Amino acid sequence: MKTYQYPERSAWADICARPVFEQQELMAGVRELLDFVQRSGDAAVRELTRRFDGIHLDDFFVSEPEFEAAIDQVDEELKDAIALAANNIRTFHNQQFHEVPPVDTARGVSCWRQNRPIEKVGLYIPGGTAPLFSSLLMLAIPAQLAGCQEIIISTPAGKSGKVHPAILYTAQFLGLKKVLKLGGAQAVAAMAYGTETVPNVYKIFGPGNQYVTAAKILVQEAGVAIDMPAGPSELLVIADKQARPAFVASDLLSQAEHGVDSQVIFVTDDQKVLEETLAAVEAQVQDLPRRETARAALASSKAVLVADLNEAVAFSNTYAPEHLIIATENALELADYIINAGSVFLGNWTPESVGDYASGTNHTLPTNGAARAYSGVSLDSFQKKITFQRLDRRGIEEIGPAVVLMAEAEQLRAHADAVSLRLQALAREMEAADSQNTL
Amino acid sequence: MKTYQYPERSAWADICARPVFEQQELMAGVRELLDFVQRSGDAAVRELTRRFDGIHLDDFFVSEPEFEAAIDQVDEELKDAIALAANNIRTFHNQQFHEVPPVDTARGVSCWRQNRPIEKVGLYIPGGTAPLFSSLLMLAIPAQLAGCQEIIISTPAGKSGKVHPAILYTAQFLGLKKVLKLGGAQAVAAMAYGTETVPNVYKIFGPGNQYVTAAKILVQEAGVAIDMPAGPSELLVIADKQARPAFVASDLLSQAEHGVDSQVIFVTDDQKVLEETLAAVEAQVQDLPRRETARAALASSKAVLVADLNEAVAFSNTYAPEHLIIATENALELADYIINAGSVFLGNWTPESVGDYASGTNHTLPTNGAARAYSGVSLDSFQKKITFQRLDRRGIEEIGPAVVLMAEAEQLRAHADAVSLRLQALAREMEAADSQNTL
Repeated sequence: MKTYQYPERSAWADICARPVFEQQELMAGVRELLDFVQRSGDAAVRELTRRFDGIHLDDFFVSEPEFEAAIDQVDEELKDAIALAANNIRTFHNQQFHEVPPVDTARGVSCWRQNRPIEKVGLYIPGGTAPLFSSLLMLAIPAQLAGCQEIIISTPAGKSGKVHPAILYTAQFLGLKKVLKLGGAQAVAAMAYGTETVPNVYKIFGPGNQYVTAAKILVQEAGVAIDMPAGPSELLVIADKQARPAFVASDLLSQAEHGVDSQVIFVTDDQKVLEETLAAVEAQVQDLPRRETARAALASSKAVLVADLNEAVAFSNTYAPEHLIIATENALELADYIINAGSVFLGNWTPESVGDYASGTNHTLPTNGAARAYSGVSLDSFQKKITFQRLDRRGIEEIGPAVVLMAEAEQLRAHADAVSLRLQALAREMEAADSQNTL
Repeated sequence: MKTYQYPERSAWADICARPVFEQQELMAGVRELLDFVQRSGDAAVRELTRRFDGIHLDDFFVSEPEFEAAIDQVDEELKDAIALAANNIRTFHNQQFHEVPPVDTARGVSCWRQNRPIEKVGLYIPGGTAPLFSSLLMLAIPAQLAGCQEIIISTPAGKSGKVHPAILYTAQFLGLKKVLKLGGAQAVAAMAYGTETVPNVYKIFGPGNQYVTAAKILVQEAGVAIDMPAGPSELLVIADKQARPAFVASDLLSQAEHGVDSQVIFVTDDQKVLEETLAAVEAQVQDLPRRETARAALASSKAVLVADLNEAVAFSNTYAPEHLIIATENALELADYIINAGSVFLGNWTPESVGDYASGTNHTLPTNGAARAYSGVSLDSFQKKITFQRLDRRGIEEIGPAVVLMAEAEQLRAHADAVSLRLQALAREMEAADSQNTL
């Protein structure tokens, strides 16, 4: 890790800069794959799966016998762990329902907002060597709570043509059976455009490699929504003198093992904690199965010594990390000043990895500084919020004249007329009523 | 309007299809403009403004004297209308705050969610002949409620180099003074990348022509968020026999006057209402200043006679309109079955144009079928929702073992270690406490 001692604020932007990857060529290549699938449907998907995954698929969907076989291949202990995680994720996301009950914004003008599920969603789950069944929990549970009717899962099969049993077990555990054995840009394309056998969906979720991410960005042009443009995983840790260097080191490494392009940032106001943490990182990394990956990630990672914890928070807000651990005495107080972050972990007993699996919060979070403008996935991500309004006769009387004036000022006469016509009808109704009263 | 009598469901998709525009060339052209601004900053913006708007700007920002001059150029009546609209918009959006208070997902595991404003936002407001000061109200008010610190407005100046007074008055009325005299793709680029004089923002909002929309879609690749990809405006009206043909016709025309590419769809279960409405459209269109525009829009618009109102709702959900008027006896009941729509207007006294200006709901809404996956702009659009979690010793004991199992199954050992290390430390602490108790 590169170490910075009390860097000037003017240097922060450079320290916080993520590595930039040249995207243009990647995008052009992925666009061709998408066009191929849009044009040739199943045949294109089959051909691309043969080319990139090295397998031939007659049927893209996982069959019932494959589901059944998976059940026996997952340990009972792991099944219990999945049930516990699912329960906590469900509990937290279930708190996220929010509608706006009718409010009278003016006399006779009632406005409210209701939620509706996105009817058809696609969940991309990376597979292969590291089967991310945890991502399936994180995406499928809020989709089900929201009431999405059609939930399609797509995850690449291994060389054997089989999907990892932990993913198939988790899907069944949640009651989901539409699982495509597809990976890469072709999986995204199939769900975005639909093919002869794959239904199209309205929104695509899930992490993936750079091809998957590029495909997700590009299908937006066809009107398909995506959860967010996900990049390499990140962690920033803020620690003070009461932090435990061994804990902090293990947290930094848990992020570094994700991939060579993962980034970890360590910010502290304590020189001793800085040194001990760096030493602990060195000691712990040696025993990791993925130590080469972790070392590569550490090479582009940073340790920053700052004057005090306010500066640490300001630095973190500049970086806008996906994950933020605050391992300080006053973690709860500092949390109030965090503006840009995906998910925040407080105190010495809250490693980031609990959020990856089982605390209940969502682990699909904005990376690469996107936390400045994006939130992580939540129940909201699977819902649309529709506004409703109802005016009665008093209502159109109350706000109609203002609408007429504004529409005319915007030179939209038909907008004004739609109101004027009603105001005139109302005037006639009232005259008629008056003359009846006079009789 | 093209009329369909009781079309088969299999024909609905075709009837609902929007006109498709070839985007590739447009995108390539806009990408060049964006690159130019990213490379050359203010000089590029100045050059493109000269080229496309025909004006030379020394300073891009509106000056104090220009603001002051605008105040006198707006009628007092219009000022009152703007105040009324602002008040209603503020009332409705103020109901949209929602945080998730701490919930214990497991013993010792506390999770919650808080809102944070997006610090820097850019609002694009179309100008020129039709100055959309109403869009400024719709975007700036929730931005201010959310607490966005930096709110940059960009709106094109006319040939005189001046911004329309109604827009400048509205900005001042809201207390906003950072107004750029820029339009088109160069305005979006300046706010997305920043220049020597224009600060970059994290999210860009607002309607615009096809160049503005293309620019918004493309800057997403640079990590800048956008409200939504906005297309031509749309309205679908569902009417039964109690609807008033003159009212419905005025609503259809209020949408048709927006632009030649606007689309209006009229769905009814009553033959007489259908005929009378079409006749009323013909009668009313003749008096409109924008009748040529409206007629062109009507040419690609559709009237559909269906068997009953359930079919009307199903048809509307297939189309997924930006605006939906339900002018039926049982409008409130039908509203429950609306799944895909941006904003819904109920009953005979709720013309769509009240939502454009003053009912209080937002008029920045998903078009082109995007209502299947997107919501309109709301307070949420200007906030990020950050999740927090805090485990105490009991918490890590409670869920730690499940996390270890799941991380190991995903072959992420360092993730497991971050928990195991803490569980071991806890065990040592407890042993030490026990031996002290024994003494």
